[in-house]
Amino acid sequence: MFIRVLVNGAAGRMGRITVNAVQQENTLKLVGETRRSDDLCKAIRISNADVVVDFTDAASVFENTKKIIAANAHPIIGTSGLLSEQIKELQQLCHEKQHGGIIAPNFCIAALLMMRFSEQAARYFPNVEIIEIHHEGKRDAPSGTAIKTAELIANARKITPTLKKIHETLLGSRGAYKDQVSIHALRLPGFLAQQEVIFGHLGGNLRITHETIDRHAFMPGVILACQQVVALKELIYGLDNLLV
Amino acid sequence: MFIRVLVNGAAGRMGRITVNAVQQENTLKLVGETRRSDDLCKAIRISNADVVVDFTDAASVFENTKKIIAANAHPIIGTSGLLSEQIKELQQLCHEKQHGGIIAPNFCIAALLMMRFSEQAARYFPNVEIIEIHHEGKRDAPSGTAIKTAELIANARKITPTLKKIHETLLGSRGAYKDQVSIHALRLPGFLAQQEVIFGHLGGNLRITHETIDRHAFMPGVILACQQVVALKELIYGLDNLLV
Amino acid sequence: MFIRVLVNGAAGRMGRITVNAVQQENTLKLVGETRRSDDLCKAIRISNADVVVDFTDAASVFENTKKIIAANAHPIIGTSGLLSEQIKELQQLCHEKQHGGIIAPNFCIAALLMMRFSEQAARYFPNVEIIEIHHEGKRDAPSGTAIKTAELIANARKITPTLKKIHETLLGSRGAYKDQVSIHALRLPGFLAQQEVIFGHLGGNLRITHETIDRHAFMPGVILACQQVVALKELIYGLDNLLV
Amino acid sequence: MFIRVLVNGAAGRMGRITVNAVQQENTLKLVGETRRSDDLCKAIRISNADVVVDFTDAASVFENTKKIIAANAHPIIGTSGLLSEQIKELQQLCHEKQHGGIIAPNFCIAALLMMRFSEQAARYFPNVEIIEIHHEGKRDAPSGTAIKTAELIANARKITPTLKKIHETLLGSRGAYKDQVSIHALRLPGFLAQQEVIFGHLGGNLRITHETIDRHAFMPGVILACQQVVALKELIYGLDNLLV
Repeated sequence: MFIRVLVNGAAGRMGRITVNAVQQENTLKLVGETRRSDDLCKAIRISNADVVVDFTDAASVFENTKKIIAANAHPIIGTSGLLSEQIKELQQLCHEKQHGGIIAPNFCIAALLMMRFSEQAARYFPNVEIIEIHHEGKRDAPSGTAIKTAELIANARKITPTLKKIHETLLGSRGAYKDQVSIHALRLPGFLAQQEVIFGHLGGNLRITHETIDRHAFMPGVILACQQVVALKELIYGLDNLLV
Repeated sequence: MFIRVLVNGAAGRMGRITVNAVQQENTLKLVGETRRSDDLCKAIRISNADVVVDFTDAASVFENTKKIIAANAHPIIGTSGLLSEQIKELQQLCHEKQHGGIIAPNFCIAALLMMRFSEQAARYFPNVEIIEIHHEGKRDAPSGTAIKTAELIANARKITPTLKKIHETLLGSRGAYKDQVSIHALRLPGFLAQQEVIFGHLGGNLRITHETIDRHAFMPGVILACQQVVALKELIYGLDNLLV
Repeated sequence: MFIRVLVNGAAGRMGRITVNAVQQENTLKLVGETRRSDDLCKAIRISNADVVVDFTDAASVFENTKKIIAANAHPIIGTSGLLSEQIKELQQLCHEKQHGGIIAPNFCIAALLMMRFSEQAARYFPNVEIIEIHHEGKRDAPSGTAIKTAELIANARKITPTLKKIHETLLGSRGAYKDQVSIHALRLPGFLAQQEVIFGHLGGNLRITHETIDRHAFMPGVILACQQVVALKELIYGLDNLLV
Repeated sequence: MFIRVLVNGAAGRMGRITVNAVQQENTLKLVGETRRSDDLCKAIRISNADVVVDFTDAASVFENTKKIIAANAHPIIGTSGLLSEQIKELQQLCHEKQHGGIIAPNFCIAALLMMRFSEQAARYFPNVEIIEIHHEGKRDAPSGTAIKTAELIANARKITPTLKKIHETLLGSRGAYKDQVSIHALRLPGFLAQQEVIFGHLGGNLRITHETIDRHAFMPGVILACQQVVALKELIYGLDNLLV
């Protein structure tokens, strides 16, 4: 027994990687690949897909998801751009049918675990700083993941650390503060993406580090979603809901 | 309101550190310090201690704990050497009185979190290796923490990795295997104790690292135990039971 | 003024990357690309190349290099497989003409610096261990770079550390010994190649870490070789001779 | 044969550690310990010291050094506070006698090597950032070592990197700039002092990390200075002059 998977947007960068990953996973079977010009409804019908993974574009993702649900396939949506009203409408559609689906802004399980562990550690260790390193092509700082991690830490903390006044002889050396968590962003060639969350405690320190070296980093999450979506009875938002 | 703490074994290395830590924590009040020659029962009575922290020695810890329970104080036992029959007997004593106490082989919260996070990550990422670094005075390898971490990982894993056959041109280079987790132990000056648990996944990696730079690393756990023991109704073994 | 570069073996993996790197470097000009079926002598003549970079195969590299020298172009040889007698013969050819060339088993400048820094640190700090991490496809351990680094350290050391006897409760945990340097090799997905050389000293430690995330890591060395070879008067072996 | 060492300021923190380190090094012999109230000249004469290590205070170091030179002992000055005119005068005194001595603002060999390696790497890799982590008691940022490292890198660089414009959505996240080197300073419990210099290059990265876990980190440099000063013919400033 395996789960039948169709990849929509199979010609794109993420689509191609997904096709590959599905082919290599023996609990899944690749039953179709569709491109912009293909008829998605027909492809689902012909392939008898259980699951459709969508890596397309913001303009078509809402309609695609409606088609997938209508065809009784389970949607795994990695495409960004859905509005919150649209997500609610799609969740309502699934709710009526008690039909499972997953919309995830981040399929990287390891990054999600890094955030979860940071939350857990923050309950005991209020003193924490974040270092993120990205390739030099990333033109904004800090990263969305760093900001999100800081927010999660701030919410999980029982004690807000009374930050001691540090005299900056060079402005910016202490980083940026987000909810009393200091964030430091590096931009260098020779890295793709990395984040280190460092907790200091009396007599020691605890570090949680996640490094991505290529785009395949998202695949373990896509595979997990394909395996679990068939047992779901609703459309969930965020892969972290699957991580027990 | 604060919790009244007596330190038994206050002249020893851990005892001295504990005295200091209790004095600096404003939810606790140091009400007594006892040494080998002191009468523990009398000291508890006079000081009206809520909690007694015991860092003494294997020969006296069992009798000490019985005295603490008999005096209606809550024992926090950091001394090693209790036999499992003795622990059971003490747990029975506490059970009868619905009286809280804590026996902990390891008070380092950060090390316990490192183990817990490793278990959680192992559910998703079966490929993992452990590197531990200790000062050159540590004459055995690998460390007990490394072995325990490997066991926890092995129990948590859903998939046992099919380790590929690696040809060792120098024997030992791939480390020691414990439950299909490879462990590497370094012994170098300039370190106290450090452990890194490295999970590799398709396209990235996740590292959990704990470093101890001095003996104060145990104090956050001792403080937490003092704070929580007064609300317990039994004698628990292992500080990880307090970490939610 | 720029240096005219022809890439021999332009269809191979390293060749394609080299073509790209030469095109992006404004001190160099790509004047030709040759494949297996092309006539190398003719291509050099027509393109009027100053430098020929050769990434071909062991079977043809010796003849290629002779042709390049005969055509008065400077050879940069990244292809492995030359025998030491062949290297001597090529060096003799260059010596007679006072003609510059470079044969390099490793074009990664950062890896060469890591080895050089390790040698320098070894003069002061005899206690050192090496950790190397490679992707799980690498089927031998430890890596050639780790072994070479250990040899360089052993030669540079003024004091051989008296390794204390460590009791291995799990065999292999202390790694492999090469010239009294302990080497630990990890094999995990989510890494390409990484090496960390850790020196411990009284009160602290010094780490030199090199990480490769893709094959472009060799390009800074190829570019440097192209820039400097035109001023050389002999055929040198090893890029480290160019690092001052 | 051993070198006879007297420690001036033996009651201070650094003095006590030095006394200990000298006693444990078998090429050296501790022949005297002096405190504030002692007569330094007399102590040198009686002990027949070859070398005097001075860890005293800014108010007395200049006079101490003159006394040491006058007594024909070799000064090793770890005390800070000498003015540049005073250093010149002391160097002149030594020059006249062709007498060796060492004044060093930093005796940590590993930290000096970290700076030296950073200079060497900067010749090839212009893209570099510095992360320093200190205990939370350090109230200024960035550290002097970080600033000095940035200056050395800037001087060694052949190419100044054209820093791409990064949009800081949180001010300070990109750190402080010193000579086009970005510096990030963390302040956390559970650390003493640490600095990581990270070079990024096409396809990879090179990191040089130095960590201090206690004050003994200065001792290897003090020992080296004692061993080498007896062969010097002048008063040198900076221990890096001894590192070949």
